[in-house]
Amino acid sequence: MDKVKTIVVNRSVYADNDLEADLLRQYLHDKNVFLVNVMSSPGAGKTTTLIKIINELKKTFRIGVMEADIDSNVDALSIAKETGVRSIQIHTSGMCHLDAGMTKTGLDGLDISDLDLVFLENVGNLVCPAEFDTGACLDVMILSVPEGDDKPLKYPLIFEKCDLVMINKIDTLSYFNFDMDKCCDTIKFRNQRATIIPISAYNGKGITEVAKYFIDKIENWRKK
Amino acid sequence: MDKVKTIVVNRSVYADNDLEADLLRQYLHDKNVFLVNVMSSPGAGKTTTLIKIINELKKTFRIGVMEADIDSNVDALSIAKETGVRSIQIHTSGMCHLDAGMTKTGLDGLDISDLDLVFLENVGNLVCPAEFDTGACLDVMILSVPEGDDKPLKYPLIFEKCDLVMINKIDTLSYFNFDMDKCCDTIKFRNQRATIIPISAYNGKGITEVAKYFIDKIENWRKK
Repeated sequence: MDKVKTIVVNRSVYADNDLEADLLRQYLHDKNVFLVNVMSSPGAGKTTTLIKIINELKKTFRIGVMEADIDSNVDALSIAKETGVRSIQIHTSGMCHLDAGMTKTGLDGLDISDLDLVFLENVGNLVCPAEFDTGACLDVMILSVPEGDDKPLKYPLIFEKCDLVMINKIDTLSYFNFDMDKCCDTIKFRNQRATIIPISAYNGKGITEVAKYFIDKIENWRKK
Repeated sequence: MDKVKTIVVNRSVYADNDLEADLLRQYLHDKNVFLVNVMSSPGAGKTTTLIKIINELKKTFRIGVMEADIDSNVDALSIAKETGVRSIQIHTSGMCHLDAGMTKTGLDGLDISDLDLVFLENVGNLVCPAEFDTGACLDVMILSVPEGDDKPLKYPLIFEKCDLVMINKIDTLSYFNFDMDKCCDTIKFRNQRATIIPISAYNGKGITEVAKYFIDKIENWRKK
């Protein structure tokens, strides 16, 4: 597959993004489609991690992916090629994040009528995406070892908002001065309810635990 | 030294940031102070790189540093401790970038009356800082090997805007799937005038070349 659908979205004209996000969450629940918003810095490994997680979960759920970027469609192509699931590219018209209206436009373009689970890979950015509720059922993030253990100190909001923090690239721990205990303590200081799972999307470590985490979350959500 | 001055800045009320940035550049020229705006993703190594560069340049120039972050003052403390130059922390009140007004407020707080060269370490973010002219005399960026060679495809504006792209953490090239030639070709496709210097802030490789680059730029600027 050498082509994926690309959708250009602009910032929603709705003033009240929070209201729109709540409406989108209700819509998703009515459709029985669980949407996960995945955030991180550029290059923390969102796409590679998603490929590994999707390949664990695709026997259980019918999955779709929305890849948000300012430009290029390399991520949507990678997802389609490496997992076989339906994938679209969302171009944000230069915007640094997605809001609920843009997310809804993306879902309409993806077509969720035959899906159980959708991953939204947000724009690589630790600041702005955390400020805009996309309407997702779950917010998760990836911090990677090369970025350093001080990121929860410097970018508080995203760590406060996310239910799951994956610490990726742990295969490179011996290469970097990264204090895992200190990092986890700072994340917990920001957000006591955060689940922290160290992973390596490169060698697959921790991916089964993350897949189980999503299965549990989706099962509980369906009971609501 | 366990304390550094921290300044909280808010977005400028001026509508025309570009005009304000031009006025700031003229002010800096009148004061004979060269301001460098340093941008990158979170964790690409801005602070460590600055420490190495400053320790090469401080025998030639009187240097000051402004560290912009949403929270924490760890970077300003590191700069002060590792280089001995005057350093302040700028807190951006949650903002994802600095504009020219915020930069001017920072410069006033730093006090540039006895300085030749000021480095502004912008908020770690590949999107928003590129959209706002800070009034700096030179825009430079750091891309790090662990982030991947596809970043110039995904974040076009910052690569188009910067005169210098340092590719950092080259000591980890054997650990990551990073194609240096492909990356440089994509940067040049975005911006033909960009100077690209591979560096390792960890082992010092390339730092002398970067220092020489700054000396040349400052000498030319002073002749204008």
